[in-house]
Amino acid sequence: MPETSTVTIRRARRDDVAVIVAMLADDPLGSGRERIEDPLPPSYLRAFEAVEKDPNIQLVVADEGGGVVGCLQLCILPGLSSQGASRALIEDVRVATHCRSRGIGEQLVQWAVAQARSRECRLVELLTHNTRVDAQRFYKRLGFQPSHIGMTLRF
Amino acid sequence: MPETSTVTIRRARRDDVAVIVAMLADDPLGSGRERIEDPLPPSYLRAFEAVEKDPNIQLVVADEGGGVVGCLQLCILPGLSSQGASRALIEDVRVATHCRSRGIGEQLVQWAVAQARSRECRLVELLTHNTRVDAQRFYKRLGFQPSHIGMTLRF
Repeated sequence: MPETSTVTIRRARRDDVAVIVAMLADDPLGSGRERIEDPLPPSYLRAFEAVEKDPNIQLVVADEGGGVVGCLQLCILPGLSSQGASRALIEDVRVATHCRSRGIGEQLVQWAVAQARSRECRLVELLTHNTRVDAQRFYKRLGFQPSHIGMTLRF
Repeated sequence: MPETSTVTIRRARRDDVAVIVAMLADDPLGSGRERIEDPLPPSYLRAFEAVEKDPNIQLVVADEGGGVVGCLQLCILPGLSSQGASRALIEDVRVATHCRSRGIGEQLVQWAVAQARSRECRLVELLTHNTRVDAQRFYKRLGFQPSHIGMTLRF
């Protein structure tokens, strides 16, 4: 039986960036996009600084006894639609391979949903790749509807 | 034969908010979500102020001789994935009913794509409702792929 989760969701720190990037890369889709080098390419640290400075973005990690085992980025986006309610956008949800099926992803997403509620959003949205069937089942279990097509243009 | 477009894409101003909201409401999905009243509910103006203050968000309109005939919101979101490249998110694309099929939507979206390139994004993403088949065909024509499921949770 899988252990249940005992993780803490906390803001990501600069010294978490390498572990987060490793999780982003440890994935059929992410592996071709990331560069795992030591030292890490400086573009990652510049992006971390941009995220840290942005009051609408929270990059959080699931911390288990000081080790990072998951991550999620939440953006709260003001906009006119839905009577001027902000939207919440969830991106880059990952759980370390050896820690899956223990509810850590659920804890991360429920944290994001609670944040969205507390910021008076009426909508939480995310895109999940067509091939990520497990992720789609996971989000449906948490109440998300596959209501939209997620369209992308890559340069 | 439809006229071609002679619109200018410019930043939305406070006095455009009512027209933008009217376009958001003039839609099978939007009509149940918006409130068209005179004066406009203050939540719309508060949201406009939040959008204006946010350096990552641009709410633009298609202006034809001083009249607003379309709108689009572009968010440029920093993040770690794709080697720390920002993502561009397009939201709330609308063209006034009487101005459709003249390339105004395409002009708005191409403006957003050019902005995303100039901000060194590698990805432009958007969610379009499953029922908006015409919109999906439109975005495919502009090079977008229906690569993702757009999942939503409404409160």
